[in-house]
Amino acid sequence: MTLSETTAVQRTLQVALDERSYPIHIGTGLLGDPAVLAPYLAGRQVMIVTNETVAPLYLDAVRRGMPADIEVQELILPDGEAAKTLESVSRIWDALLAAGFNRRCTLVALGGGVIGDMVGFAAACYQRGVSFIQVPTTLLSQVDSSVGGKTGVNHPLGKNMIGAFWQPRAVLIDIDTLRTLPSRELSAGLAEVIKYGLIRDAEFLAWLEAEMPALRTLQPEALAWAIERSCALKAEIVAEDETEQGVRALLNLGHTFGHAIEAHQGYGSWLHGEAVGAGMQMAAELSRRLGWLEQYDVERSAAIIASAGLPLEAPMDMGVEDFLSRMRLDKKNVDERLRLILLETLGRAVIHDQTPRELLEELLATFPRS
Amino acid sequence: MTLSETTAVQRTLQVALDERSYPIHIGTGLLGDPAVLAPYLAGRQVMIVTNETVAPLYLDAVRRGMPADIEVQELILPDGEAAKTLESVSRIWDALLAAGFNRRCTLVALGGGVIGDMVGFAAACYQRGVSFIQVPTTLLSQVDSSVGGKTGVNHPLGKNMIGAFWQPRAVLIDIDTLRTLPSRELSAGLAEVIKYGLIRDAEFLAWLEAEMPALRTLQPEALAWAIERSCALKAEIVAEDETEQGVRALLNLGHTFGHAIEAHQGYGSWLHGEAVGAGMQMAAELSRRLGWLEQYDVERSAAIIASAGLPLEAPMDMGVEDFLSRMRLDKKNVDERLRLILLETLGRAVIHDQTPRELLEELLATFPRS
Repeated sequence: MTLSETTAVQRTLQVALDERSYPIHIGTGLLGDPAVLAPYLAGRQVMIVTNETVAPLYLDAVRRGMPADIEVQELILPDGEAAKTLESVSRIWDALLAAGFNRRCTLVALGGGVIGDMVGFAAACYQRGVSFIQVPTTLLSQVDSSVGGKTGVNHPLGKNMIGAFWQPRAVLIDIDTLRTLPSRELSAGLAEVIKYGLIRDAEFLAWLEAEMPALRTLQPEALAWAIERSCALKAEIVAEDETEQGVRALLNLGHTFGHAIEAHQGYGSWLHGEAVGAGMQMAAELSRRLGWLEQYDVERSAAIIASAGLPLEAPMDMGVEDFLSRMRLDKKNVDERLRLILLETLGRAVIHDQTPRELLEELLATFPRS
Repeated sequence: MTLSETTAVQRTLQVALDERSYPIHIGTGLLGDPAVLAPYLAGRQVMIVTNETVAPLYLDAVRRGMPADIEVQELILPDGEAAKTLESVSRIWDALLAAGFNRRCTLVALGGGVIGDMVGFAAACYQRGVSFIQVPTTLLSQVDSSVGGKTGVNHPLGKNMIGAFWQPRAVLIDIDTLRTLPSRELSAGLAEVIKYGLIRDAEFLAWLEAEMPALRTLQPEALAWAIERSCALKAEIVAEDETEQGVRALLNLGHTFGHAIEAHQGYGSWLHGEAVGAGMQMAAELSRRLGWLEQYDVERSAAIIASAGLPLEAPMDMGVEDFLSRMRLDKKNVDERLRLILLETLGRAVIHDQTPRELLEELLATFPRS
């Protein structure tokens, strides 16, 4: 059985990072096909790391996709952001050492962004660095964590505080896995897809406006293109700024407002993508008030965010000061300026630290709540 | 006060690793001089990490060497290889976060190899990588850990199993710190110095034969040159093979036998350098039996190892099978060959995996014990 016979949709995107370049394979029927995984296994030892939610759904398929001569170990971690700790990564290291895995072993990260971040970090530091393969199973991780090489864990005093930049050998995105994804999480992933259009690709944004129904009903061709284009746009930005010194900040469109919403509501109450959806609309409205966007642009932005099933309004109980404090702005120091990602046009974002403080506070006071 | 007025001896060696290149400053009176440290501080936040043995001796001096506008935090960890754990590195991360240190902070590793390895690893993974400066205070760490970028910690199932390759911004070797080093540890450091001569530099080896008394009585000029030449030789090898795929294995001369001795006696009973001393002599003797070295060469090797105050004989209670099992050789599988670092001449080492098993066992049976 060759690859072309088993997969109805198959696209490949190359992420160019010199000697750390790797392919992203996007398609249907990828899991369970040994021809897909085999080229990326460094040695004969593989550990599949997944979580309690994903294991019953896809672990068998990934195991079936292993060539016959490979020693396969499995590790199932708890699900959720609360498990994204150094202790969980230590469990991976314990399991690798207990199994006698050497420097030519390969880790497979099967799950969403939390699993990908932890397994990537475990690979970065096991014997000073071994290979790993990402198999992201949520739309968010497919379009976000697949590209960029950021790995790590949370610390009680901060998210993603401990980690490393470490690139996978390959990313396998089987869009069939989205069939089991809750619709709310699909929408949250679409927030990041829309973000790529807003910050860098007006044509892609127009395509998303037309194809949003196809995406929300999981049409494979539409999903594959949305994922490929998102990954390509992120890869362009990351290639320009691998270790996050400059342009990579554009990826934070909607995130400053979004993080404030997530933190104020308590993480997990709003999904990250939901907060980013509302946050992007806040950035669009602020961009209009700065004279960059037209009212028409703001309505287009609102329409596409809403069509993805995302909120357009901030939480009812969140006041101006709640926002300011979460954005680490001192109420008394009105000279203090915030570095924000804003939109010059739909399709071009900029880093801007000259927003007058009264304009920002006016936005926070008048932006719709629900 | 300028640098030249405060330091009687001052040498600088550049380690060339493209954008990760850094200088090694070697001299007297370096600690306590702000002009030395200042150029390598990335931001305004510095954490000095040291251990309980070194802190009372040199922490004040390093603190005095900080420019006045720097926020300095300190962390004192337990001394010894047993403290080289992920838990200790976690304490560094906890302290950095508690102090609100950002991505432009700098860690200073003040101590021997254990401190250097842990602080380097903490720097590699704090917010996905921050700057660090090595201030090695033992001869072994000055000539070994200063170059190579290996960082990490031990795991109950293996030494140095968790870690990263991460280069310092600079290495400051103040040879005054050797005045407080126990003489046995000075000898252990000299084992690695001799090793560099044996594997790669016959002229340096001849110089060591003449200057060993000056080194053991801590003559600054002699120490500075021995350290500089050792670091330069290691840097040449590391530059050829940064992530340890090939020629870097030559640095393991004497280490296969040495590790067997250390493990059999219990770590800490023989110092690493002592075991390497005896191990190098075993490698020299095996090289003679393979027809490469003359009897005269073996006697020269023995003389210089002995003159450094190192043992020339294996432990009395260690039999052939003790060696074989510690070297992971199966007694029954006589076809199995060991990859050893051996000497073609004094000053040129090779990687050799064709030593006949009976020749190896004969060496192990007949090598002197005490």
